[in-house]
Amino acid sequence: MTALNAHPDKASLETVIRSLSEQFGNRAVTNPGVLGTHANTLTWVAPQPPDIVVFPHSTEEVSAIVKLCAAHRVPIIPFGAGTSFEGHVNAPWGGVSIDTREMNRVLAIHSEDLDCVIEPGITRKALNEQLRDTGFFFPIDPGADASLGGMVSTRASGTNAVRYGTMKDNVLSLKVVLPNGEVMTTARRAKKSSAGYDLTRLFVGAEGTLGVITEITLRLSGIPEAISAGICPFPSVKAACDATILTIQSGLPVARIELADEWQVKAFNLHSKLSLPETPMLFVEFHGTEQGVKEQAERFGDIAVEYGGGPFEWATKPEDRTRLWQARHDAYWSALSLRPGCKVIATDVCVPISRLAECVVETQKDVQATGLTAPIVGHVGDGNFHLTLLCDMDSAQEVETCRAFLHRLVERSLAMEGTCTGEHGVGQEKMKYLLKEHPAATLDTMRAIKQAIDPQNIMNPGKIVAV
Amino acid sequence: MTALNAHPDKASLETVIRSLSEQFGNRAVTNPGVLGTHANTLTWVAPQPPDIVVFPHSTEEVSAIVKLCAAHRVPIIPFGAGTSFEGHVNAPWGGVSIDTREMNRVLAIHSEDLDCVIEPGITRKALNEQLRDTGFFFPIDPGADASLGGMVSTRASGTNAVRYGTMKDNVLSLKVVLPNGEVMTTARRAKKSSAGYDLTRLFVGAEGTLGVITEITLRLSGIPEAISAGICPFPSVKAACDATILTIQSGLPVARIELADEWQVKAFNLHSKLSLPETPMLFVEFHGTEQGVKEQAERFGDIAVEYGGGPFEWATKPEDRTRLWQARHDAYWSALSLRPGCKVIATDVCVPISRLAECVVETQKDVQATGLTAPIVGHVGDGNFHLTLLCDMDSAQEVETCRAFLHRLVERSLAMEGTCTGEHGVGQEKMKYLLKEHPAATLDTMRAIKQAIDPQNIMNPGKIVAV
Repeated sequence: MTALNAHPDKASLETVIRSLSEQFGNRAVTNPGVLGTHANTLTWVAPQPPDIVVFPHSTEEVSAIVKLCAAHRVPIIPFGAGTSFEGHVNAPWGGVSIDTREMNRVLAIHSEDLDCVIEPGITRKALNEQLRDTGFFFPIDPGADASLGGMVSTRASGTNAVRYGTMKDNVLSLKVVLPNGEVMTTARRAKKSSAGYDLTRLFVGAEGTLGVITEITLRLSGIPEAISAGICPFPSVKAACDATILTIQSGLPVARIELADEWQVKAFNLHSKLSLPETPMLFVEFHGTEQGVKEQAERFGDIAVEYGGGPFEWATKPEDRTRLWQARHDAYWSALSLRPGCKVIATDVCVPISRLAECVVETQKDVQATGLTAPIVGHVGDGNFHLTLLCDMDSAQEVETCRAFLHRLVERSLAMEGTCTGEHGVGQEKMKYLLKEHPAATLDTMRAIKQAIDPQNIMNPGKIVAV
Repeated sequence: MTALNAHPDKASLETVIRSLSEQFGNRAVTNPGVLGTHANTLTWVAPQPPDIVVFPHSTEEVSAIVKLCAAHRVPIIPFGAGTSFEGHVNAPWGGVSIDTREMNRVLAIHSEDLDCVIEPGITRKALNEQLRDTGFFFPIDPGADASLGGMVSTRASGTNAVRYGTMKDNVLSLKVVLPNGEVMTTARRAKKSSAGYDLTRLFVGAEGTLGVITEITLRLSGIPEAISAGICPFPSVKAACDATILTIQSGLPVARIELADEWQVKAFNLHSKLSLPETPMLFVEFHGTEQGVKEQAERFGDIAVEYGGGPFEWATKPEDRTRLWQARHDAYWSALSLRPGCKVIATDVCVPISRLAECVVETQKDVQATGLTAPIVGHVGDGNFHLTLLCDMDSAQEVETCRAFLHRLVERSLAMEGTCTGEHGVGQEKMKYLLKEHPAATLDTMRAIKQAIDPQNIMNPGKIVAV
């Protein structure tokens, strides 16, 4: 019997690897290159590769893998597209990475019910491609072309969460392989239910620590009749945040409202060959009827002027809109153009919107005082912002400076009634902050749930509640 | 040591009662009348009164009560306004009813963040009264003037969930006294977070079986600039449902869309002295700007005509709207006017909206075939509908007929991918259906969570997962 939080014993691991290789043939891979890509993609966390990667095709196959691992107490790491930031897919004690990329079918589209049933490996862009002719789309957009399984697991949100909510609001039901290999569905396809504990929401954001998601029923939204987007410069971050607060308070159903600080705008200009004025800026988008969108845009314009914003640049043509949002989505990559050769450390915090301006301004001051390069983009309608910190990983001193800076960022957010992560998740890197964010009884409750559902601690061990 | 699912031993109970009486004085009540009102209000489930009712004033007092009960293994039944339908507040093994009615303060209103912090005993009408001057309101409206703690615990929704979501979408955080008396908060006040398991959603809908809620942070919504409401008759329930589906599919942001079948309209006429044509009818309401509401109403009108609906009767004056919705909200009471002297058995199911017409029509046929009186009202935008079954409780045969009918209703809903309850909850009456609604592994997971958080099974025992 292996201990918890330790490598499985060698014989057990070998048995599992042999058995998976027999069963899955070339869909069970131990090639070091493939193992490496399953440990580390966009994160700066040091890679910890698994011992084997398996590419199942069905819930039954996932169940078989999990039962095998459970019998031998070998860790399981569910894997989507590997776009997470906080070390979610690392395998600190080795084990089996279950890569769901080949489980990527759309199983059903229920137009009358505005939902669809999909497999977890499909990415959001591929899903929207398949939905295109239906008149519906799946709105959640974290920027990266993440897998839906991963988006469920990190409780992802992104640019248009301010209108469409986060993954927790857009998942109707999940099929899950539990740590004992049993299969459960969390809910029926009805739009709402009060039939017992909300297991759907328990697995949304569980980061693969409670089971492997093998099917997802998603809510869909109608493609809006009209969309208008635009950018609006502001004299200061505070002015942009205040305009955002009033927009939200006024009940304007803005679909996206994104802040880029002056550094991020500079990065956009460099990376996307734009010529925006290098001042804080809001990227906004409205969805609705032709008339409604016009009305919303006018109202937003009035609010912006109140805070010294403008002039607007509206993009009603789809290609202009795409260019605009592509620039915004390339924030991660564009930041690199400010200091080529560095690693980008992407992180996020979220505070009540009333504290946002203060939190961003203090963070900018800290960036300047520390001499770091760290542009800021924010889903400001939700009080959520990202830092794309540029770090020369070859300089131990700079790495240390970055660590200390990130620590202060989280502390600042927590001091303002915020959370250590609005949408990226806990993974390995933010476990230490849960103890500061939540009372001890809250962490005890999370641990009790993990222990109850995964008593052997084989399901993505070393994440969320492992410290 | 008492066994699980049994009355506490007499000495333990006496110790707890004596201790509570000493500590709480006249806020600890053993008067049989008061005990009776804590077992049975709007439900038809046979009453099972607690042994004592306590009226705490603070989280600390609740914690003290729970610690006392935990030490002596005495059941605890959290109590709000007692408006639940499925036997949620019964005390099958006696114990302590914690009535939160005196914990009814609004602790904070954060206008900039569109949230407020309240105690659980405040009712939704009292809350909206206190919010009136702020420009905000709390939209969830289950009809009854329920307590917010109760609404959280049953995952309530109601008439405008189609636009504003259910309680799960409108709770930001909870303070909870756990079954061991420890106090936890489930989340920070930030609008979104990915910092660990979603304990907020786990306690929303847990029906008091995992802990006692002592503080709630709610999302608020802006009072719409313009509201317009109206009623529209349809030639059949199917036509009304089809018009609803198209309304939702078109992305019309309808705030309420409620079906009343011909029997329910008759009941409205009798009870509320209206003179509506006794045919299936949709009650609709739109929220938005003056212009937006007008546009929505016109679009809805076009859709209704397509399905043979009309003529409309629009109510733009607040007093007309109030009269209209008061009639709708009095569905429970108005049903009584169809068969005075009977008991009203209110129940609910929810199906994917595509199956709604079929489910309602089959249910109506069943009502006719059985000779029962059972008007139907439905939150049709969500696929959720209610039956207010009139039952002569003195006739054993009729009670039996009602039971069999309710059983068929749930079976029908489950056969259509629906749920046994959309918003009323499980309580005692619907436990048996969870086994049909969910796979065994789902129920095992719910039980494992209950066992992990409440190992002594003292927290509202005999509910949700007790069978």
